[in-house]
This record gives sequence, structure tokens and C-alpha cells, in this order.
Amino acid sequence: MSSAYFYEMITAHTRAERDQDHIDIILSSRASTPDRTAFITGASTEDPLPVMIGEICRLAGAGADIIALPCNTAHFNYHAISKASPVPVINIIKLTVEYAKFTGAKRVGVMSTEGSFISGVFAAACREAGIDCIECLPDGRAALTDIIYNSIKRSKKVDPAAFERVADQLAGLGADRIILGCTELSLIKKEFCLSDIYIDSLEVLAACAIEVCGSSTTGFPAPLEKFAKLYRF
Amino acid sequence: MSSAYFYEMITAHTRAERDQDHIDIILSSRASTPDRTAFITGASTEDPLPVMIGEICRLAGAGADIIALPCNTAHFNYHAISKASPVPVINIIKLTVEYAKFTGAKRVGVMSTEGSFISGVFAAACREAGIDCIECLPDGRAALTDIIYNSIKRSKKVDPAAFERVADQLAGLGADRIILGCTELSLIKKEFCLSDIYIDSLEVLAACAIEVCGSSTTGFPAPLEKFAKLYRF
Repeated sequence: MSSAYFYEMITAHTRAERDQDHIDIILSSRASTPDRTAFITGASTEDPLPVMIGEICRLAGAGADIIALPCNTAHFNYHAISKASPVPVINIIKLTVEYAKFTGAKRVGVMSTEGSFISGVFAAACREAGIDCIECLPDGRAALTDIIYNSIKRSKKVDPAAFERVADQLAGLGADRIILGCTELSLIKKEFCLSDIYIDSLEVLAACAIEVCGSSTTGFPAPLEKFAKLYRF
Repeated sequence: MSSAYFYEMITAHTRAERDQDHIDIILSSRASTPDRTAFITGASTEDPLPVMIGEICRLAGAGADIIALPCNTAHFNYHAISKASPVPVINIIKLTVEYAKFTGAKRVGVMSTEGSFISGVFAAACREAGIDCIECLPDGRAALTDIIYNSIKRSKKVDPAAFERVADQLAGLGADRIILGCTELSLIKKEFCLSDIYIDSLEVLAACAIEVCGSSTTGFPAPLEKFAKLYRF
């Protein structure tokens, strides 16, 4: 669902008066891509990387000149993806962490899949940005896995209390912002009304993708619109 | 917005327990495609057909083996599109009219763009299906143009009263069903709660696309799920 939501988000947040003001999009949803977390955790030996690289090349071959990959976990080997891609690939992890810093974060809490936790993508990006990365404890991570795989991916209702408990855990560990670092979690932000301390990685990716394609954003939080304007490859 | 909604609709209505149960989708949103109605009415000389055929070939080249075109007006020259496409193109107009008949319609009202009215696509499909086609009078058509171009395409709120007046006109002319025959109007069905007499062309296209790709639908009206199972090229 999150790539459908990503597409909707780009369309809704591009400043446009008519169809022709929108940006050209070519989108591949390869549902059969092996699960990223299952591969990273070792639960499966099916490597999603060749499929993802194949799709990126397919899109570039069909004329895409910038790639946005609305899956945080898929960035576990951004270097390999970026190297294999004939066109630039926006890095959702790096951008989201930089945006958190831009809003004043010093200790950023991260909600992600188990795959992203193990691959350490957010910890590395925070280190590079010079801010602290607060990750969930094992029970918080188990709760997130349950929310992502058993609720959202199955189009079932998310228990707000379960989500709140994870947020409270991160706040208790000192987080001053909370990154929704799995694009499935962005669907929670769509449904519930979350406060400004939440930073939605999908929104950051959408805003930067719109700007880098030469269009202007509308309707995003003001700091994000400002940040996206600064973004260059 | 309607192609984003179409993608969301396919994802939400495919019976799936995990990502890998979804169908593979490759989607091109060529925002720069010339306006279909402007060309049909003669307000513009920019022919959208070459762009649309180019995009269809691009998708087929990137591996698509079935094309769904979520724009009713674009079907003004379905024959040319179908002939130029290397792979089958689902005909939203024909399917929607056949589905209306399947639900028992004898006199079907049509809400469409001015382009579809002038090209006569719904009238022709109804003739072929052996049911009556009720189209709006000039003031109803002007109201629809206003709703589609000045509200929906600009992401502005639709005035429910204006929409109701058009529906009342069709009912007054004897329509027993009302086809939402412009995919922008499907967004109204998403927002307002419309009764069963409305037939959403975008839902018909989505249901048939899911079935023809070998998956099963979920959450559509029961007659539509039954109809989509019967659909073959």
C-alpha cells in the first residue's frame, strides 16, 4: 500500500492547477520482490537486491531520470543499488535523518523494520549527521514487526495503543523526534493525527522528489517544504 | 489524481496477506499528455493519441502484458489505441456499460466529460449492449465540466449540491443507473457516500484488471466481483 500512498502523496502535494502541471511518473510495483527484512534477518535466502536493481534499470530504460524507492528497508545496501543504477537514486534514509536535524533534532528516535535495525542504516546516517540515534528495545521492535506485518501489510486496523507504547518507549529513552522509518508506518500518520515530533520518511522522500523534478510542493509542513528546496543530488 | 486512486484501488482490492500476493504493476503517469477533451472539442489541436500510444508501447516494452487506461475520455479512439498496442488494452467504456447491464440497467445515465459526450463512446457502447443511453442536457454537461476541471483536477472541494443537480437531471430523464464515466468523478464516490445506482467506471476497470491478471478481488460490491470473474479478453 505504501507505494500507492507515495504516488498519491506526490500528486496531492505537487503545486498544480491542471493535469499538465504534474510531473511525469513511471512507477514499478514489483510485488514479487522478496521480503527485505526476511533476507536481512536470515529468515530467507532470497536476495531482493537483483530484483530491485532489475526494476530500477527497467524504469531507467523506460525513461526515468531519477529514482525514488519508497521502502526504507530496501536501502540496506544503498551503495550497491546506487552503483548499479544508470540514474541517481534518492536516499530516503539519509534525507530523513538530515531533515530531522534540520528541524532541530538532537536525539532522534527511529521506528523501523527489524531489517533496518539489523542493517543499521539509521544509526549510520545519524552518525554521519552528528545526531544521536535512539532505537527501540527488543519488545518495541517486536511490536513494530507485528504492526507492520500483521496489521498494515494485511490491510487490517492498527491498534493505536500498541503504536503509542512504542512511541513512549522511544520518548522514555530520550528521543526528541520520532522518525517513521518504514513507509508502511506512514499509513498510520495518514490515519491517526500525529504531532509534529513525528517525521515521516515517505513525506521527506516525496517532497524532495517533487523539488528535484523541478516542481514545487504544496501542503507539506513548512520546514519540510523549505528543506526540500535545498535538496540537490 | 485518478490514476493514483486507481493504483490505490487495485492494491486495496486485491486479495492479499502479504506484499508478494499483489500483482506486478508498472504505471506511467505522463502528466504532459495533452488534454483529451480539449482536442476532441477542437479547443486545442494537440492530439493526445501519439503520446498515449507512445506510453503504452513504453509500458509494454518494460514488460506490461495488459494495459488498463484509467481515463474514459482517452477511449475516444479505442480502436486506434488497441491496434497500435503490442498487448491487449482493457476497454473501460465497454466494460462499464456491460456491467451496468449485468446489474439490470435498462436506461443508463452517463456522467462524463464533454469530450466523451462529443465522441459518443458511451452512446455507442450502450447501442451495442442493447440498453438506452441517457446523457446530460447542456446545462448538466456544463456543470460536470466545472466539477471535473475547476474542482477535482485542482484538488478543490466539490459542491455536493451541484453534483446532485446533475444526478437529478439524469433521473428525471428516466435513468435507472448512473455511470460515473469520468475517472475524476470516481473521487466523488470516494468522498461522498453514493447509493448503489451509481456505477463507478474506475471500480469496474480495477476489478477486471485484477481478475485478468490472475488475482482475486476483495471488498468490491458483490455483483462487480461476480462480473469481473466472467471478464476475458
